[in-house]
Amino acid sequence: MRLDELPPRENFNDWYNEIVEKAGLTDKRYPIKGMNVWTPYGWKIMQAIDSLIRREFDSTGHDEVNFPTLIPETEFAKEAEHIKGFGKDVYWVTHAGENELDVPLLLRPTSETAMYPMFSLWIRSHSDLPMKIYQIVSTFRYETKQTRAFIRVREIHFFESHTAHRDFEDAEAQIKEDLDILGRLMKNLCLPYMIHRRPDWDKFAGAYYSLGIDTFMEGKILQIGSIHQYRNNFAIPYEIKYEDERGEHHYVHQTTFGMSERLLGAIIGIHGDKHGLILPPAIAPYQVVIVPIPKKGHQEKVYEECGKVGEKLKSAGFRVHIDDRDLRPGNKYYYWEIRGVPVRLEMGLRDIEKGEVVLFRRDEMKKKSVKIENLNEEVVSLLADIERNLYERAERKMQGRIVEADELSDLDMYSAPDILQVKWCGEEACGIRMEEITGMSVLGTSEPEEKAEGECPICGKNAVKYVYLAKTY
Amino acid sequence: MRLDELPPRENFNDWYNEIVEKAGLTDKRYPIKGMNVWTPYGWKIMQAIDSLIRREFDSTGHDEVNFPTLIPETEFAKEAEHIKGFGKDVYWVTHAGENELDVPLLLRPTSETAMYPMFSLWIRSHSDLPMKIYQIVSTFRYETKQTRAFIRVREIHFFESHTAHRDFEDAEAQIKEDLDILGRLMKNLCLPYMIHRRPDWDKFAGAYYSLGIDTFMEGKILQIGSIHQYRNNFAIPYEIKYEDERGEHHYVHQTTFGMSERLLGAIIGIHGDKHGLILPPAIAPYQVVIVPIPKKGHQEKVYEECGKVGEKLKSAGFRVHIDDRDLRPGNKYYYWEIRGVPVRLEMGLRDIEKGEVVLFRRDEMKKKSVKIENLNEEVVSLLADIERNLYERAERKMQGRIVEADELSDLDMYSAPDILQVKWCGEEACGIRMEEITGMSVLGTSEPEEKAEGECPICGKNAVKYVYLAKTY
Repeated sequence: MRLDELPPRENFNDWYNEIVEKAGLTDKRYPIKGMNVWTPYGWKIMQAIDSLIRREFDSTGHDEVNFPTLIPETEFAKEAEHIKGFGKDVYWVTHAGENELDVPLLLRPTSETAMYPMFSLWIRSHSDLPMKIYQIVSTFRYETKQTRAFIRVREIHFFESHTAHRDFEDAEAQIKEDLDILGRLMKNLCLPYMIHRRPDWDKFAGAYYSLGIDTFMEGKILQIGSIHQYRNNFAIPYEIKYEDERGEHHYVHQTTFGMSERLLGAIIGIHGDKHGLILPPAIAPYQVVIVPIPKKGHQEKVYEECGKVGEKLKSAGFRVHIDDRDLRPGNKYYYWEIRGVPVRLEMGLRDIEKGEVVLFRRDEMKKKSVKIENLNEEVVSLLADIERNLYERAERKMQGRIVEADELSDLDMYSAPDILQVKWCGEEACGIRMEEITGMSVLGTSEPEEKAEGECPICGKNAVKYVYLAKTY
Repeated sequence: MRLDELPPRENFNDWYNEIVEKAGLTDKRYPIKGMNVWTPYGWKIMQAIDSLIRREFDSTGHDEVNFPTLIPETEFAKEAEHIKGFGKDVYWVTHAGENELDVPLLLRPTSETAMYPMFSLWIRSHSDLPMKIYQIVSTFRYETKQTRAFIRVREIHFFESHTAHRDFEDAEAQIKEDLDILGRLMKNLCLPYMIHRRPDWDKFAGAYYSLGIDTFMEGKILQIGSIHQYRNNFAIPYEIKYEDERGEHHYVHQTTFGMSERLLGAIIGIHGDKHGLILPPAIAPYQVVIVPIPKKGHQEKVYEECGKVGEKLKSAGFRVHIDDRDLRPGNKYYYWEIRGVPVRLEMGLRDIEKGEVVLFRRDEMKKKSVKIENLNEEVVSLLADIERNLYERAERKMQGRIVEADELSDLDMYSAPDILQVKWCGEEACGIRMEEITGMSVLGTSEPEEKAEGECPICGKNAVKYVYLAKTY
């Protein structure tokens, strides 16, 4: 095991493809391209992310459910925009055993068309509203682009919440709650983000409007989630109606909030360095790994003290692992660095004699000695500091890549900035022309919208707002 | 909401079909037969069962993984017996988007053929062994028989552990560990069980031998899990080999242990009564539900005291819910009885004045008053007693239905016992004849095997062991 096995971080694609396997997150050799195996360490991290998501949604009155994986074509086809948007991406089950099915079934690419036939049975009266449910499941998309672990895969570990409301305003209030949830979650995952209201030509199939949750990774924007306002676009074809207090019937208004294993992809790509992963403390399977530094003739003493320190930390609620393998400490350091453990605790005979341990923080690769009597408080504050530091340095990096451009025609002449802020008249034709000139995608307007004064660089008419462009994954 | 909405328990099939929906466990109206929606309360219970399973397997050195849902036909076809056994039951994905796939994919009916190509990459040396992994996922079987929620469905919530070992003996030791795990789990789930070594004509496709985990529900045997010894039957076609200490290469020996949502089906069907579900305390989403008994002019006082008692129980680690809905207490009783909450706590003004609460146990439908100062200890011992009582009364019922039969020809003349114990020569022909005569299935021999002395009632030759027969789900 040697450091130089990892490609340099500068070769980002190579580095990423290697690190996901070297850190024990996934195995890409499964015999279907884009469908990977979650190996134990990767699955533990994903489950920790899922736990944070569950905590947020449970505590805001959402109920967890679990819908079937398959959807009949007849249900899928009910919302015209939706099938147009997804029809080319789905896997079709046409046979069962030796029989051809009367109605083909598809593997859900997302669950609107699975859930909404049931919503129309579940929702009868205003007292059933709001209805707020979520699930964490596999979804499936027949990706034709190059696949990449956690970022672009064909079986996707997916979170989706679906809500139904009595009117548009109540659905809008849900979206505000979703944004609050997102803010708390992203702090824990140390992921800076921007909210962009997608332009009409890029919204979700069937949505009234779509908010993209965008983060920044290695020069490009990575969408790590989305929130959609459906208005009653699905309620009409799926006949989801309620009776109000006066006996009148209305269609519900609906929203969804989706996130996926891309969260993990973003954590890997944004925080990782030449030594490997750096995991946010909230989702690290082990927050502290203890490495005993044995000395000949004193092994037992050292292991015993490490055990005591481990118990002390565990009983304070930390996730702790004592690495007692018969390996040299240096190899253990390398092993846990590549896996991104936030804090390593080293302890040798001299430390014990001084009543101290050495704490090594992975984000800064720095050591410091602390008194064992203060250990719990030191670890609390170190983990909090790592969380803050990871978030802030990624946030600074992202913000530093946003540049306002007045003249798009100049762009190809200098090394283009990663994220462009441009004044926009709001016309689709101008937005699409901006994409053509820059070779970037319009991310949309920021949410809430920023007013702009001046001229749209395409048509020269009055600009009304700012629009953002970037290359995207 | 009235009691008489539930069919009588005597009409077991009707009762079962109704209770699963009335108790909020599932919705069977999803537009694919046999693929049901897990509604919030049912999903919470299943997740609690999953947590118990994870605790057992994590603490015995198994690593959780997550494999893709789809398997290429080419991998599936490698083990001849296996494809023969499952080929007729699988769902085939033949198209993606508008393309026909070169290699059809199938939805896993179980994961041997997904996992073992990876095992052959992961296992190199004796130091990689034993390898012990598990996953909790959806599996799919195209059932042609009548479906029934949790018992016979087409998308199955499934647990499966897969292990690889250096030799047959080490794999046998794993099966012993599995049986220990099973024993602990079944105590928590209050499910009595029998282990039967299935006859050769009924073992798992590809197995060297199969142990069925059988419980007894309403006159029939329900298989709630199985443990298989594969020997090297899969290792050979999938080329799973290791190098031993002397540099020689050997095929690994493998085992699997599988359980499914049938565990929940068994809990419903075995413990439930005319009032609804009865949940084992270990998996009840709420172990205690508090129902305030308000009195005019004293509502606030009663709710305040209920809140205090609730906090006291929560901080002692119980899962507690205070039902503060604006409903009559009687309606709340009915609501939580049908959902099987183990303990209801009732508290009115008179109780408060006496420093007491009323505890109602769902298994016996009995009340008793206890002092608030002793509440935590009372609830601990009450929950333990409910767990013991549920297990023991189901165990007694099952054992009471086993009858030794010397003359199979008499059987159709009296009301046949549910589980037959019969002396057997061990010949397949005699076993199959027993099935024909009784209209029952051979469950197999008990594990460990019970020796018998006397005659096989079919061929009259010397019997060597006992075999069990019953009707099965």
